[in-house]
Amino acid sequence: MTPPFLDAKIRTSFANQSMMATLGARMAEFGPGHARIECPILPGARQQDGFGHAGLTFAIGDSAAGYAALTLMPEEVEVLTAEMKINLLAPATGDRLVATGKVIRPGRRLIVVSAEITAESGGDSTLIALMQGTMIPMHPRG
Amino acid sequence: MTPPFLDAKIRTSFANQSMMATLGARMAEFGPGHARIECPILPGARQQDGFGHAGLTFAIGDSAAGYAALTLMPEEVEVLTAEMKINLLAPATGDRLVATGKVIRPGRRLIVVSAEITAESGGDSTLIALMQGTMIPMHPRG
Amino acid sequence: MTPPFLDAKIRTSFANQSMMATLGARMAEFGPGHARIECPILPGARQQDGFGHAGLTFAIGDSAAGYAALTLMPEEVEVLTAEMKINLLAPATGDRLVATGKVIRPGRRLIVVSAEITAESGGDSTLIALMQGTMIPMHPRG
Amino acid sequence: MTPPFLDAKIRTSFANQSMMATLGARMAEFGPGHARIECPILPGARQQDGFGHAGLTFAIGDSAAGYAALTLMPEEVEVLTAEMKINLLAPATGDRLVATGKVIRPGRRLIVVSAEITAESGGDSTLIALMQGTMIPMHPRG
Repeated sequence: MTPPFLDAKIRTSFANQSMMATLGARMAEFGPGHARIECPILPGARQQDGFGHAGLTFAIGDSAAGYAALTLMPEEVEVLTAEMKINLLAPATGDRLVATGKVIRPGRRLIVVSAEITAESGGDSTLIALMQGTMIPMHPRG
Repeated sequence: MTPPFLDAKIRTSFANQSMMATLGARMAEFGPGHARIECPILPGARQQDGFGHAGLTFAIGDSAAGYAALTLMPEEVEVLTAEMKINLLAPATGDRLVATGKVIRPGRRLIVVSAEITAESGGDSTLIALMQGTMIPMHPRG
Repeated sequence: MTPPFLDAKIRTSFANQSMMATLGARMAEFGPGHARIECPILPGARQQDGFGHAGLTFAIGDSAAGYAALTLMPEEVEVLTAEMKINLLAPATGDRLVATGKVIRPGRRLIVVSAEITAESGGDSTLIALMQGTMIPMHPRG
Repeated sequence: MTPPFLDAKIRTSFANQSMMATLGARMAEFGPGHARIECPILPGARQQDGFGHAGLTFAIGDSAAGYAALTLMPEEVEVLTAEMKINLLAPATGDRLVATGKVIRPGRRLIVVSAEITAESGGDSTLIALMQGTMIPMHPRG
């Protein structure tokens, strides 16, 4: 069960992340402690060999992890990335990338998160990156 | 001293990284074991509060670290990111971001690298992120 | 199915890791792509508040991840840790720590691994740390 | 300039870290934003090839980074490690290891730190590991 404000909060926040539009990314699904972002590998998001840039993989994984954390926050609280580690396992290639973010431990001061990024092609799915990091809740200034 | 082929190799590779053009990034300077990339914070590269997206900071830091590694490789060898850790220290805001990549240890199998990303505004410079990671040399298929 | 040499290889290697004996750690179980190490929190392995030191948690997590990787290597190949990230989620306290290492992707040049460390107390189990890193295979010198 | 309480605070805390005594480590020097820990590579702190265990390198690097952070805290505040990344560059071998911790950015909620660990042998010094992580200040319960 997600609180009634959450859907609008996440959709507004995602729409304000102009980087997501630039990358062609969309919020595919979210719920308590998880979120999934999908995107194509646009011609303008490549590295030197024509694969998706590590910055693309990182960007959608970071956002998926951040929105996973946001699903567990009170209405007025946002989250920011404090730190993130990514291991790249395979080239970002195929029809689209899917980033699934998950909350590992929702603390009061730190929210530990992970994300898996897969590349989908036809019916195949390949794990291309694994992320582990920390989000911090940001309370509005009093 | 950099080898004679290096300038063309790096400029060609950078030009092929379409993500860099999308982000408005340019290769500002490189030499043996270091590279510097600069970019504005384009309207299309923001997070929900209007600051630069963590994916922007990561993308230019990762590329700067990768090209720093590439300066030490033989002509036919490329590099790929194996893993990267980023600590975000301050919001990405200001006139432009500057990512300085550096080789910490150039191994035969692994190249350990770091990158610092600063935000410049007027005459001020603020450290906004620190990265530490691993590049792997890719030899052409025989 | 593990190859016939694996049991002796892992037990010999573990016995040679004198750090494991110092920490009171034992190899509890291993199989293809995974390994589990258990240890008490000895009086000599504490931090300033009497909890297990982060170095203890790291040491058994790193070894568990390393032996998970070793289960997939040919007889003459060892592994070394290239890099490792740890997120500490809760204090290391209780009857014993259990580190479960797992291979995420077994590459020819890099083996990406993870480890979970739990603290066990009575019948309770608490996730206290999460690790994600890279092992490299070491072939014998020719 | 360090505050008058700092010397006693750090020496007491270090003495309470029994892991440091087990590893033969001593606090060699500290000042505002930095700390240095030295230790031998004891027979009981080895990995399978006789080099220092990654857990040894991590333990002194983590403690050096933690005490570097502690030098900047008010008297009643302690620090804990939230997360830490280590890149291992060379085997831990030689007469002794030296871990130098440094504060990169002292925030109110998060303190970003780094540590370098060198192996000293005769007059030679080799960088064997680089760490980057986050400490969190712990205020006493009210």
